[in-house]
Amino acid sequence: MKLSLAYLGPTGTNSETVALAYANWLSQNDQPEVVLSPYPTIALAAKAVANQEVDLAVVPVENSIEGSVAITLDTLWQLEQLKIIQSLVLPISHALLSCSLSWQEIKTVYSHPQALGQCQQWLEQFLPSVKLIPTNSTTEALQYLRDDLTAAAIASPRAAKLYNIPILADHINDYPDNCTRFWVLSLNPTTKGSYLSLAFSLPENAPGALVKPLQIFARQGINLSKIESRPTKRSLGEYIFFIDIERNICNASLQTVLSELSEYTEVLKIFGNYDLLTVQL
Amino acid sequence: MKLSLAYLGPTGTNSETVALAYANWLSQNDQPEVVLSPYPTIALAAKAVANQEVDLAVVPVENSIEGSVAITLDTLWQLEQLKIIQSLVLPISHALLSCSLSWQEIKTVYSHPQALGQCQQWLEQFLPSVKLIPTNSTTEALQYLRDDLTAAAIASPRAAKLYNIPILADHINDYPDNCTRFWVLSLNPTTKGSYLSLAFSLPENAPGALVKPLQIFARQGINLSKIESRPTKRSLGEYIFFIDIERNICNASLQTVLSELSEYTEVLKIFGNYDLLTVQL
Repeated sequence: MKLSLAYLGPTGTNSETVALAYANWLSQNDQPEVVLSPYPTIALAAKAVANQEVDLAVVPVENSIEGSVAITLDTLWQLEQLKIIQSLVLPISHALLSCSLSWQEIKTVYSHPQALGQCQQWLEQFLPSVKLIPTNSTTEALQYLRDDLTAAAIASPRAAKLYNIPILADHINDYPDNCTRFWVLSLNPTTKGSYLSLAFSLPENAPGALVKPLQIFARQGINLSKIESRPTKRSLGEYIFFIDIERNICNASLQTVLSELSEYTEVLKIFGNYDLLTVQL
Repeated sequence: MKLSLAYLGPTGTNSETVALAYANWLSQNDQPEVVLSPYPTIALAAKAVANQEVDLAVVPVENSIEGSVAITLDTLWQLEQLKIIQSLVLPISHALLSCSLSWQEIKTVYSHPQALGQCQQWLEQFLPSVKLIPTNSTTEALQYLRDDLTAAAIASPRAAKLYNIPILADHINDYPDNCTRFWVLSLNPTTKGSYLSLAFSLPENAPGALVKPLQIFARQGINLSKIESRPTKRSLGEYIFFIDIERNICNASLQTVLSELSEYTEVLKIFGNYDLLTVQL
């Protein structure tokens, strides 16, 4: 039996790099073979799992420079049957790709908005007058390069090799310690793993409404490795809080936290336990 | 003397609508006349104030559906000389603009990623097979419509009128209660206003590190109207917390909070006091 794995395509995206690394890791751990399936957006890749079109999806959650990927958090809140079964961290290196021979000729730079954001200071310093054009993925940006010698794209060195496009400048990230965290989503949760993600909305917007839930974690000595707010979409000023912690669901102090938490929250959703892998490039 | 006001252009953007409303409000309150100055990005509009190219800038902070505008928060943290002097809330209505006569012909939809996100369900229902192409602003999307009858753009009804492009469908937002909050930035803070924004980083990532600062607000009965985390950009898992509260800087309990807060935070930045205006369309 083969497992199908959805990711944000097309070939050459960072999501694909992570999907390949995950498939490789599964095969080394005597797990079933994986068939990769590209999707045009992150939301559609996640929904493919919910609709049982595929078994798994790999989706980006957070970049160390640009922050959370809002669509991933919103989709997880909406499709609560989706559970996280694995987290993967990918070190990110951006390069400037172009068919042009010199920087002076470049008038436009195409890339995913997160990649443009991660190279913003480099672009302001070395290509201050170029026009920045957002695309749906770093790979999609490459389609503009063949016919236009004044165009460049920000993508990975791997995409340069795959699409046979020269690299004009390498390591152009503004911050060297740039990585993106991904989640693998499935309908079948595990009870293994030392990380847990959950989210909740609050019953009222009153002084201390958020402090009470956070105090519950602090009392049990549980560190929040991440807290992020997203709008409830009902009205401006109402939020859903996404929290990552380091605890297994079978841990007694976590069970205490979860039962106390339900008293102080309106809706509480648990996205499951998982382990963290760092992708070696 | 005239005041210059930077905004995310070109003509027809929601930022311009807010800039015009703010200029109008100033003139009704016996304030100096305002000259509007469009900028290609939010970051450049904010930096124009820091560099003293302009007196003021209007920047989007948060949408009730899509959440915070990351670049605005990051820019404010970096350029701490910028202070918030006013907040404005704009009700948002999205329309589908096209030179095509029928929906069936539409193959691509251009718009700012936030606008595409705010109409995602509508697009999936009525135009499921179109290609979505992100642009730098809702107005920039309009440039593709004149020469391509298979293209549509999501923009405001005001932009449709300004650029004389037909509206194919109106009120296509997924959520009717859609509004965006803006800040007016200046180098000269006011001490008036009932709202205050601040941000801090934490000295250590330990259990309860975030709870301590939040407890200080709760003990003084101060409600947090918003909390948002952004990466410090140093390493994955380190955050800056942005907080909005309802208190004037001269309030004694707030002064207590701010002095206690500096004990539990690494860097603490106060972005100033301001009032909230709702823009009437």
